[in-house]
Amino acid sequence: MANLPIKTVGVIGTGVIGASWTALFLAKGLQVIVADPAPGAQDKLRSYLEKEWPMMSKVGLGPGASLGNYKFVADINDHLGQVDLVQENGPERLEFKRGLFANLDAKTRDHVILASSSSGLPSSEFVTDCKKNPARVLIGHPFNPPHLVPLVEVVPHPGTGSEYVTAAMEFYRKLGKDPVLVKQEVPGFIANRLQAAVCSEAYSLISRGIISAQDLDKTMTSGVGLRWAFTGPIMTNVLGGGGNFRHMVEHLGPASKVWTEDMRKHEFDASNPQSLNELSNGVEEWVSNIDLESLEKKRDNSMLGLIQEKSKDAA
Amino acid sequence: MANLPIKTVGVIGTGVIGASWTALFLAKGLQVIVADPAPGAQDKLRSYLEKEWPMMSKVGLGPGASLGNYKFVADINDHLGQVDLVQENGPERLEFKRGLFANLDAKTRDHVILASSSSGLPSSEFVTDCKKNPARVLIGHPFNPPHLVPLVEVVPHPGTGSEYVTAAMEFYRKLGKDPVLVKQEVPGFIANRLQAAVCSEAYSLISRGIISAQDLDKTMTSGVGLRWAFTGPIMTNVLGGGGNFRHMVEHLGPASKVWTEDMRKHEFDASNPQSLNELSNGVEEWVSNIDLESLEKKRDNSMLGLIQEKSKDAA
Repeated sequence: MANLPIKTVGVIGTGVIGASWTALFLAKGLQVIVADPAPGAQDKLRSYLEKEWPMMSKVGLGPGASLGNYKFVADINDHLGQVDLVQENGPERLEFKRGLFANLDAKTRDHVILASSSSGLPSSEFVTDCKKNPARVLIGHPFNPPHLVPLVEVVPHPGTGSEYVTAAMEFYRKLGKDPVLVKQEVPGFIANRLQAAVCSEAYSLISRGIISAQDLDKTMTSGVGLRWAFTGPIMTNVLGGGGNFRHMVEHLGPASKVWTEDMRKHEFDASNPQSLNELSNGVEEWVSNIDLESLEKKRDNSMLGLIQEKSKDAA
Repeated sequence: MANLPIKTVGVIGTGVIGASWTALFLAKGLQVIVADPAPGAQDKLRSYLEKEWPMMSKVGLGPGASLGNYKFVADINDHLGQVDLVQENGPERLEFKRGLFANLDAKTRDHVILASSSSGLPSSEFVTDCKKNPARVLIGHPFNPPHLVPLVEVVPHPGTGSEYVTAAMEFYRKLGKDPVLVKQEVPGFIANRLQAAVCSEAYSLISRGIISAQDLDKTMTSGVGLRWAFTGPIMTNVLGGGGNFRHMVEHLGPASKVWTEDMRKHEFDASNPQSLNELSNGVEEWVSNIDLESLEKKRDNSMLGLIQEKSKDAA
């Protein structure tokens, strides 16, 4: 049942993430029914889509792609019977999502995948009031900006049916995304945990005056992260160990332990005003004279170039 | 004194790192005097350089670049009076480096920068027997493969003279590298700490069966790391916070804390054989059928392409 063709997607919430999903769905030839109760949401969405459409043409338009294929509706309830998948992007409040998903579950056909973009709340916590078929609820967590970054974390809750997981992975893959399967719910899923591990240490090093904010970032963009854009931490270890991963881990283990213990000893504490001041002052000093809008635009263009190079390589 | 032109570099040790530095120095038009007591080192270096020279042509040859501009010598002592900088790549053993640097200090002219590629030992620990001028000793830690990856971590010890730091940064910059200044010695410097933070969590997630090794890497290459190749963790936060870094840190702080605490609770322990087995089996399952040599070659080519794109953008 989960394998029916998905032609019409319901998008709930048109903040940064919801609007970006809408652009992607349209670019890949889907029909979109979209709702957001915020004042001015309809106009904001329209201007966002118009602004981003040239970028979507660069990303690649699928058959039938059209900026006109969406309908902004006042009440999504009148349309839930028509959608083949829901991508939810509401506020990250548990009570809100509980009520919302109970309603989505009640009003959509029972095989329709209900995917939440939630970056934090595991779906087991908000399917509790779904009476019809909670097995089709899962997390489909995109990465900012979702219409460019290929990663989508698919996270089932313990009761999600495997057929829905498979269908969701397939759906995102057809959109040109690169979904990964998070097999068990863990706080922060995968990407946010990896980011938190890095940021926590980065904040500590900057606030301690060991490296400037600019040089910290350069350590990533000219070194560690540059490599990680091509081979992740595991494959980087495999290659570093001449193919012998286990040996590499055993060999690096003792040194790594010293580093990790030192990081613990100097852990950044965001609730300590002095540390936070040192950190933000260091960042401000660097960032205050940068034109962030043009930097972001350039970043997105360069990133799209790399994504396209890489997908050519993989083909 | 530290600003004399650097025309002849002494390279000590021709393992992976020393050989790669030699290739880069030659490509940038320098003369290289190189020594390594290991049996067969001279032949190994020659075939490495011949194999990598086409790659160096792609990286870009400087005026006077020639594969012929190096001299492999049996005893570096006879030549230390001629070199304008030493790049040391010996074994990571403290006693060894202590003796080696005492000798380098005694036999080179007193303004010559003595840079160690050490990834782990801070130079304060091995300058102890330098009698002439320990102020010109510092770490110049490259990233594998050094002839491609732009990052070099420059780490002075407390007694390093700032003029030598400035000159070393300038030297690496002229080679096309992107040096960062680590202002105080900390275990693992910067890059290895950031890597250890990520790897530790990655190993834990894989050994716990939460994500496959392949999908863990994909989380980096299609998401987090892909972005970090362009904007580091700090700028990514700045952009994510609409320009307000401090607000972003304060806003994400509580969630981040939950993630970090959960990571602690499930910390990977390389000395636990069961965890290590789960991890290595997971990696083996993925990696065993991959042609690593061709994957590495492809990675290096793609990475070079990106490095060149980025330096065009920066120009």
